[in-house]
Amino acid sequence: MAATLPRRDLFELPAGVIYLDGNSLGPLPRGAAARAASVIEREWGTELIRAWNSAGWMAMPGRVGDRIATLLGASEGSVTTGDTLSIKVYQALAAALAMRPDRRIILSDTGNFPTDLYMARSLLDTLGQGHELRLAAPEAVEDCIDETVAAVLLTHVDYRTGRMHDPLAVTRRALDAGAVMIWDLAHSAGAVPVDLTAWGAEFAVGCTYKYLNGGPGAPAFIHVRPDIIESVRPVLAGWLGHAAPFAMELDYRPAMSTERMRVGTPSIVQLAILDAALDAFEGVNMNDIRAASIALSELFIREVEARCPSLALASPRDPERRGSQVSFSFAHGYEAMQALIDRGVIGDFRAPDILRFGFTPLYLGGVEVIQAAEILGEVLDGNLWDDPKYRTRSRVT
Amino acid sequence: MAATLPRRDLFELPAGVIYLDGNSLGPLPRGAAARAASVIEREWGTELIRAWNSAGWMAMPGRVGDRIATLLGASEGSVTTGDTLSIKVYQALAAALAMRPDRRIILSDTGNFPTDLYMARSLLDTLGQGHELRLAAPEAVEDCIDETVAAVLLTHVDYRTGRMHDPLAVTRRALDAGAVMIWDLAHSAGAVPVDLTAWGAEFAVGCTYKYLNGGPGAPAFIHVRPDIIESVRPVLAGWLGHAAPFAMELDYRPAMSTERMRVGTPSIVQLAILDAALDAFEGVNMNDIRAASIALSELFIREVEARCPSLALASPRDPERRGSQVSFSFAHGYEAMQALIDRGVIGDFRAPDILRFGFTPLYLGGVEVIQAAEILGEVLDGNLWDDPKYRTRSRVT
Repeated sequence: MAATLPRRDLFELPAGVIYLDGNSLGPLPRGAAARAASVIEREWGTELIRAWNSAGWMAMPGRVGDRIATLLGASEGSVTTGDTLSIKVYQALAAALAMRPDRRIILSDTGNFPTDLYMARSLLDTLGQGHELRLAAPEAVEDCIDETVAAVLLTHVDYRTGRMHDPLAVTRRALDAGAVMIWDLAHSAGAVPVDLTAWGAEFAVGCTYKYLNGGPGAPAFIHVRPDIIESVRPVLAGWLGHAAPFAMELDYRPAMSTERMRVGTPSIVQLAILDAALDAFEGVNMNDIRAASIALSELFIREVEARCPSLALASPRDPERRGSQVSFSFAHGYEAMQALIDRGVIGDFRAPDILRFGFTPLYLGGVEVIQAAEILGEVLDGNLWDDPKYRTRSRVT
Repeated sequence: MAATLPRRDLFELPAGVIYLDGNSLGPLPRGAAARAASVIEREWGTELIRAWNSAGWMAMPGRVGDRIATLLGASEGSVTTGDTLSIKVYQALAAALAMRPDRRIILSDTGNFPTDLYMARSLLDTLGQGHELRLAAPEAVEDCIDETVAAVLLTHVDYRTGRMHDPLAVTRRALDAGAVMIWDLAHSAGAVPVDLTAWGAEFAVGCTYKYLNGGPGAPAFIHVRPDIIESVRPVLAGWLGHAAPFAMELDYRPAMSTERMRVGTPSIVQLAILDAALDAFEGVNMNDIRAASIALSELFIREVEARCPSLALASPRDPERRGSQVSFSFAHGYEAMQALIDRGVIGDFRAPDILRFGFTPLYLGGVEVIQAAEILGEVLDGNLWDDPKYRTRSRVT
């Protein structure tokens, strides 16, 4: 059985709940509420406008970015935070295409999160230069990288299946073909070991409200490989990416650092909460998290398969090819997930038929994983999901 | 002397401070900290992922947008919130240009806030269709609107001088010329009466951390005229602007409402703080705020000019042509503002030589305005600004 990393006391987890949805929204870290209160009452309330300097607000996007960089094997100064992941995808892809003006193919896969594809298509529409967004199956995408590809835009861990790309192999193939590599680390940051320096991709983006526990609407991050930053087009050239924002010049001059990827005024309260949340990762080795996560997910698969013959594993069986989640497909997946949540086991449902469970060793142990499998077994065994009250689809699951 | 609206007790204002910078960052509304704590501890902490439904998070951008709409004379459902003002400027302008594919001029003025111009230029670079961003002097811009202009992008109240455009006249001229009108209301929302329905502009955008007191990094807003929304290109087509975000379709279908201007996951904590801040405007008539603001600013000009002959009024003298701020130019403006802040009067400095003061009748009265003028008089009279400690330029003022 997997050992819990001794960090559960760093989170506020409600009694009676087994939380297997930290891959969608991480739980509340214990210091976050106090940190938000301090920013609101002490910094904003008493320092007012002066807090942009006195409380270090203006430098927060880069300072918090540096903390994320250490979790991603990225160098200091190469990550900044802000906006949403959709916006950061847009910035990265637009900058990438500007680096390959003679190529017209953007390669992604059908397992990518929809907003990445939507933002890519809307960028291509705006560019109007005849680019093509080409989607391959996740298993086939690596083989589709060739010298016609301008940029490869992939999510490292598939949001639906948990299938994980081989980032070293894919990035090497992209770089060898002269394609710009963009990794979306939404389901990787804080979940699996990432070594951006070793991978060598030009861009990486991600969100911070999943495994990093930054809270609802926490800012996104973007990493730019340090050797190219001074030639990267910021594309969404907002004033806080300017070399001297408060000079209020009519013309834009980009900052000579990752700060050029900043756009507008940062969401200081959300950044402060994220900053507090990152304390839970202080002194943690991502390899230990990974080992514990694999132990938990292997345990869950074993326990579920022993009890639930009607579920089909939708994730790779090999844990080395899987992120920190396990998915099962089931025709009545929506209803089954509502019934499960009703019984205190919180996972989520993803259309069309996926039951999704995230494993987060910082606050989750083997006992809960077994309990969750038992309750799932009861729901399926007794057809408890077949109750009209579980059929009403709410907007979010 | 101006009467204070009886709302000062709705704000947490530190003792010993006269705050004349609500035009840059509004002060802390009294209910905001408790509201943030409730969202963090009760909703996020105990509801976890379920709060997207149970606490109404998913609908918050539109619900808060509706509250802003009532302050702007806009119809229900025509305003949504999220991202930053820079992003919303980009969305509005890109949508506008798509509506006028045969025109190539974007008209703005040299008094516009730099990020509006930066975002416009970066959009034009991305489009690569030979558009021209044409800048006129603020006084001359109305006369430059003709049938070659695709879009007019103006900030209603000039951030530096407080000069206010005539929105009815400018919008009519734009519409008559077939140009799409975009108003940036950063220094208008919550400060001066706005009647978007009467103005008839296609788009309006703004930020909420100034006169609306939404806190540092509060989300921006965007208004789209209801009759055009179903044909507006969202441009930054993120998943939360999709007609059915959780269907997770590979292709984008925009929502048939202002929701299509949403992009990524909204910053829920900041939205909740903004929502609480808007309580201070419940039952307030913007005409009363305007009358009180004019009284305060007229008083300040009179008192300052009686004491400070070295200052030159940089705002229009006619209060009807001025927003809710007063600016003076002074060669040593930076140092003078630091000396003034050191003595408890908080305004701000804007390059190259502007001392800027905002008047916010919700929490400011005539007594403080006179005191502020007296202290400014002392600073200038005694050359108190001429101290080396006031010369070090910090990044933000």
